[in-house]
Amino acid sequence: MNATDIKIKELARACKVASRATARLTTAQKNQALHEMAAALMANEKTIVSENAKDVKHARTKQLSSAMIDRLVLNHDRLTKMADALREIAMLPDPVGEISDIRTRPSEIQVGMMRIPLGVIAMIYESRPNVTSDAAGLCLKSGNAVLLRGGSEAFHSNTAITAALHQAMEKVGIPATAITLVPTTDRAIMNEMLTLDESIDLVIPRGGEGLIRFVVENSRIPVIKHYKGVCHQYVDKSANFDKAINLLVDGKTSRPGVCNALETLLVHKDIAAEFLPKAAEYMNKLDVELRGCEKTCKILPNIVRTTNDDYATEYLELIIAVRVVDDYEMAVSHIQEFGSDHTEVIVTEDLETAQKFLRDVNSSVVTVNASSRFSDGGELGLGAEIGISTTKLHAFGPMGLESLTTRKFIVVGKGEVRHPQSKVI
Amino acid sequence: MNATDIKIKELARACKVASRATARLTTAQKNQALHEMAAALMANEKTIVSENAKDVKHARTKQLSSAMIDRLVLNHDRLTKMADALREIAMLPDPVGEISDIRTRPSEIQVGMMRIPLGVIAMIYESRPNVTSDAAGLCLKSGNAVLLRGGSEAFHSNTAITAALHQAMEKVGIPATAITLVPTTDRAIMNEMLTLDESIDLVIPRGGEGLIRFVVENSRIPVIKHYKGVCHQYVDKSANFDKAINLLVDGKTSRPGVCNALETLLVHKDIAAEFLPKAAEYMNKLDVELRGCEKTCKILPNIVRTTNDDYATEYLELIIAVRVVDDYEMAVSHIQEFGSDHTEVIVTEDLETAQKFLRDVNSSVVTVNASSRFSDGGELGLGAEIGISTTKLHAFGPMGLESLTTRKFIVVGKGEVRHPQSKVI
Repeated sequence: MNATDIKIKELARACKVASRATARLTTAQKNQALHEMAAALMANEKTIVSENAKDVKHARTKQLSSAMIDRLVLNHDRLTKMADALREIAMLPDPVGEISDIRTRPSEIQVGMMRIPLGVIAMIYESRPNVTSDAAGLCLKSGNAVLLRGGSEAFHSNTAITAALHQAMEKVGIPATAITLVPTTDRAIMNEMLTLDESIDLVIPRGGEGLIRFVVENSRIPVIKHYKGVCHQYVDKSANFDKAINLLVDGKTSRPGVCNALETLLVHKDIAAEFLPKAAEYMNKLDVELRGCEKTCKILPNIVRTTNDDYATEYLELIIAVRVVDDYEMAVSHIQEFGSDHTEVIVTEDLETAQKFLRDVNSSVVTVNASSRFSDGGELGLGAEIGISTTKLHAFGPMGLESLTTRKFIVVGKGEVRHPQSKVI
Repeated sequence: MNATDIKIKELARACKVASRATARLTTAQKNQALHEMAAALMANEKTIVSENAKDVKHARTKQLSSAMIDRLVLNHDRLTKMADALREIAMLPDPVGEISDIRTRPSEIQVGMMRIPLGVIAMIYESRPNVTSDAAGLCLKSGNAVLLRGGSEAFHSNTAITAALHQAMEKVGIPATAITLVPTTDRAIMNEMLTLDESIDLVIPRGGEGLIRFVVENSRIPVIKHYKGVCHQYVDKSANFDKAINLLVDGKTSRPGVCNALETLLVHKDIAAEFLPKAAEYMNKLDVELRGCEKTCKILPNIVRTTNDDYATEYLELIIAVRVVDDYEMAVSHIQEFGSDHTEVIVTEDLETAQKFLRDVNSSVVTVNASSRFSDGGELGLGAEIGISTTKLHAFGPMGLESLTTRKFIVVGKGEVRHPQSKVI
């Protein structure tokens, strides 16, 4: 379809109308739809894989990196995982309709909060075609409609996946417009989409920092995003060294390319001379490059000196910045100055220091004696994750189903009026 | 000060630094500060009232409406109310630090949620100078710093009020930058402020629809707002007429100029012929003009016909649109089409219809047999209100202290790693 023929405003409005239907679906209807969607993915395996092959071929012609091509490829195993993910979403509790905080007011009205869907979520993403079915499943389970805007490199794959999902929705009587793939990757159309605040309630961009900044700068609709994760581990003077080293190994090396990996190690000066050589030994064994502040370099003379740039960098590889701090307060200040509000770890055996760190550090996930790598929806108990937020508004940290909902006030009375003189009968 | 000399970026950054201090204040410190702020307002009464007189004189010269001038005037009574409001905020429970949802995960880490301040709130408002102290008090109690940008018509008043608050803060050792008044009402400076998403966490505009739309269109920072309140009362076929009429009188006439006043009455066709003449009788007595759909006009032949424009209008005066609907579904559709997500009322004696309405209508406040006028922070039990949101993100409906906070994840472990092979010691 020609980009100029696409009426994004009308697509978004149709999605908004569909969201009124998805908001009223029962849990059983949504779960049935999710199982049908999983089955439809597998039933359409041949088409999806052959459409995906077009994208992969195109990516090779464009000489995209092998990592990007790997993320793009769909095969039987990956499609099975996508179907399984939909079935797992069906098993998660339905957040919609939950009533809480019921109280009776002096006016005698009863007030409570009921959890409801947000309405229409716009997902803007790159590369991985599994996001298409994952996001569709999470949005549907939380009663929302979704507007999917994938990357040009996965356009054929995303189109084929959406067509399969639509077959399932038709079977269970949910309007296909509740899962709408924007049928173009034209930038001007995306720009126009980002102004449609009457139809779209939330934008979630997932991809590189460039894409996310573009969305934030051009959106008139609320955006939930995170740019990067510069995660810290602070080893307090009362730390247990074995714990500190295990957590460092896990945080830095178990998957260095993800946002909850450690980028900076802060060490209390009282224990630095004893702790750092041990830490360096394990880091060396695992091929991790250390870069250190002046004091660190006095203890470990063979490493490169850090600059402030190092402290602000998300390396995403086997490098870690090390800084010796005078005390707890200096560790907290360092995190406030260079952190990205993502995830921070303290290693300490002192209860009061642990309590203070949990209170004083306002990143989205703060841990005591637990790896930064636990900063993940599944590990924290949210079930499947739609994204992660380092914006404090609405959702902060890993986002599960609940983050795709909000709460309205519900009031039940027996005819109460606010002003006594209004009681005319 | 000359607008070009004002470095708004530096003001906002200083406010951000101060927010780290306010986030760590204890409840006792915050309450002490609020009481000192109340005392300082009264101690500076003479200065504040004489500075306010300059604004009022200027407003008269500019021939502002008498309603606007009335909102602007400060005197002993109004200053006393502002001080009392600060003391009431001191009495509200402190949301910061509350821990909830503690669970132990299969990995044995303990996960919980802790409530924390948002950081820096930018308040953009017009006219009423009491917003200066109200917003400062609410932001401080919730551990936030605040950047206040009032209207040019209240500039001298706001400056004098802020100076008084700063005296109080100095007494208790809170940095004055935690409550920063932007020392200009220049639009270009406000525009620049709206791009400072590294320093400001949330923008709350309060004022006319023009100001709010301007903020939404120009802000790179999340905005919580509401444009208008087109509130509906649906009188179901099973309604108790006495309740329906009392609620109509309260909703339409107790304070017609506010956003939770009723603008549209929907009546089930089965009872319209009996109910509408009664309702009209009471409305006539109270000088309310009725405008009706075709069916309404058959029952009440002397009233003006409505158009779709009427249904979308927030009259804010003694006018109400009336529409006869075929059934419950048509009432819900009407609200979805013309509503503003603010407040909707059903009058019904039928339990199942009441349950459906509470579930199906996703406005920020939905009531059964209770007046729309209860849609208010104080009446719903939130204490003082910082604003109202018809954006579903973050806060939806009247916003109290809790809406100025968010929740982070806290994790406590005993050295747990995510990947078993990371346990090197």
